[in-house]
Amino acid sequence: MDEFASISYWTGQRALSKQQERRGVAIGIGDDAASVDLEAAADGVASPKRLLLTADTMVETVHFNDRTMREEDIGYKALAASISDIAAMGGVPLHALVSVSVPPAYGAERMRRVFDGLYECAERYGIAVVGGDTTSAPQHLVINVALTGTVEAGCELSRAGAKPGDAVFVTGTVGMAAAGLHVLLGKEQHSPLTHKELAPLIGAHRRPAPCIEAGRMLARSGACHALNDISDGLASEAWEIAEASGLRVVLRESALPRSGTMSKYASKAGANPLEWMLYGGEDYTLLGTMASEKAAALQQQFRAAGIPMFVIGSTEAGKPGVDLVQEEPHSPRGAGSGTAARMPLEKRGYNHFKG
Amino acid sequence: MDEFASISYWTGQRALSKQQERRGVAIGIGDDAASVDLEAAADGVASPKRLLLTADTMVETVHFNDRTMREEDIGYKALAASISDIAAMGGVPLHALVSVSVPPAYGAERMRRVFDGLYECAERYGIAVVGGDTTSAPQHLVINVALTGTVEAGCELSRAGAKPGDAVFVTGTVGMAAAGLHVLLGKEQHSPLTHKELAPLIGAHRRPAPCIEAGRMLARSGACHALNDISDGLASEAWEIAEASGLRVVLRESALPRSGTMSKYASKAGANPLEWMLYGGEDYTLLGTMASEKAAALQQQFRAAGIPMFVIGSTEAGKPGVDLVQEEPHSPRGAGSGTAARMPLEKRGYNHFKG
Repeated sequence: MDEFASISYWTGQRALSKQQERRGVAIGIGDDAASVDLEAAADGVASPKRLLLTADTMVETVHFNDRTMREEDIGYKALAASISDIAAMGGVPLHALVSVSVPPAYGAERMRRVFDGLYECAERYGIAVVGGDTTSAPQHLVINVALTGTVEAGCELSRAGAKPGDAVFVTGTVGMAAAGLHVLLGKEQHSPLTHKELAPLIGAHRRPAPCIEAGRMLARSGACHALNDISDGLASEAWEIAEASGLRVVLRESALPRSGTMSKYASKAGANPLEWMLYGGEDYTLLGTMASEKAAALQQQFRAAGIPMFVIGSTEAGKPGVDLVQEEPHSPRGAGSGTAARMPLEKRGYNHFKG
Repeated sequence: MDEFASISYWTGQRALSKQQERRGVAIGIGDDAASVDLEAAADGVASPKRLLLTADTMVETVHFNDRTMREEDIGYKALAASISDIAAMGGVPLHALVSVSVPPAYGAERMRRVFDGLYECAERYGIAVVGGDTTSAPQHLVINVALTGTVEAGCELSRAGAKPGDAVFVTGTVGMAAAGLHVLLGKEQHSPLTHKELAPLIGAHRRPAPCIEAGRMLARSGACHALNDISDGLASEAWEIAEASGLRVVLRESALPRSGTMSKYASKAGANPLEWMLYGGEDYTLLGTMASEKAAALQQQFRAAGIPMFVIGSTEAGKPGVDLVQEEPHSPRGAGSGTAARMPLEKRGYNHFKG
């Protein structure tokens, strides 16, 4: 059972209980973050601002180990992952609760470094750390960050709003974090790139940059119909939008933004960069859809702000799913008229230490 | 290093950073829950309501095991513990984020039962479950509940407001949960009580009842100066109030409310009931201080509402700490004139599976 099936089975129809309405819940379980109307919850009066709520857990041996992450990175990334959820709703991140379950191997000094990294991230993105919980753990470090945010009521960007004919976009390259993990796991014995070349790949895995500004511009634009952050891989997130919105997402391979360093490393390491780009996960860029007639203006606006936006496909009415269009790279008849293969992409997520 | 020392070391002075003010933080790290002004955080305009934020973690082998808790109890108690934090601030609990890290031994059915118990608690106390995170875990189940609440601005009941000369009170008996744990661990081989007699002790450990109504009445009364929930034991929570408020808490042993069943079980099991009452933990009743001149009226108000309140001591100016006054039980000269011993109580918390 995958995560969605499990949650659905565990929570049953209870997520739709009377408490949801009574407590002002606008968006509940199943999106990047929940959206609630705090005034309605308290007084029954609708508020112009919504409260966003999200939580993310990182578990030693599942999400990181001594080889892949330094202590500072663990704290930094745990917070950054939650911030990315708020960004994917179009919101401003505000307050963090940090809960740690600490095994004997993590003494005071190591934990101090975990928090050093976490506070570095908090300062960078303007987050107030307001509490949490500290317990011991028998063996493995677990860190959970719950985060609040706000967004203008009605401007929350869920994954369910895509319409057929939308343009599909991402706000950054995909696959770098997976390449970085490959480097860190030492799968390539004789590193084919210099330390300087490898640094951005390793950084992408250890210190992801949540796209708050991009999310805010999208929320205010009125043109963005659906939005997700890429935590579990491009294919998996596109599947989520497709299923939640009830349509087909069609991605064009040639349009996927790829890092030159990532391609170079993949080529020298004999790895398939497309696998990393589609299934690599943890890029923490945003994947969304927008009204196609407004795409040019929004792209222009992003360009003016110096924020990346790449149109990588479109949506179609049809059975929910994701297709990849691969054009023949060296068609003698030129781009667009060459033969193109269209293949459905698997619905599978990201597993850190597999494959 | 205890929990407070650790957190203080890890977070350093950073909890006081500029983000705290910028994000409208009224009460930050170190109380039962944080209190933030969401409007100030978003718009710079003060709001009449504060947002309360708390999180609690339960870890298999640290907080529970197969012997002490059924799956349903794990979910129920994880939420109830967070609700108790909101109650201890005088607030109304609203929205929960539930994060679980699931080891292979917990399949879909066992996790469903964990969520059954959690939703039972959510329904009972009017909580909307709005999200969370699901990850795998190598070996041990970890469940974290982050919870929101609201309280009228300025009515938050922190642990720092006690004044010398206050009356000290609790809103329920203490020591039952510890007795229940003793039963569940099978420390008494031949159970000296009937199943029916043991049920409330076991229930106190597995299904604590957070004191939301008591917290609300205290917040609205204007007479309550400091409040904590008893998660780590009466002595430990009294120490927290003493240290946060800068005074001495004096408890009278004869005034501590004790369950007859608990006393009977302790006596037959050869255990010391006072140890359970002072250091047992997890009773999730409220411990607070109130203006002594208003104590009678507030007690009357509680009585009228059918909610327990026991005055168990008082506060004094002096070096922060906690004393216990033990009166000679069979003084021939009657109560009050008998010899009384006053001894300082240790500052130690609660460890589930020790002692």
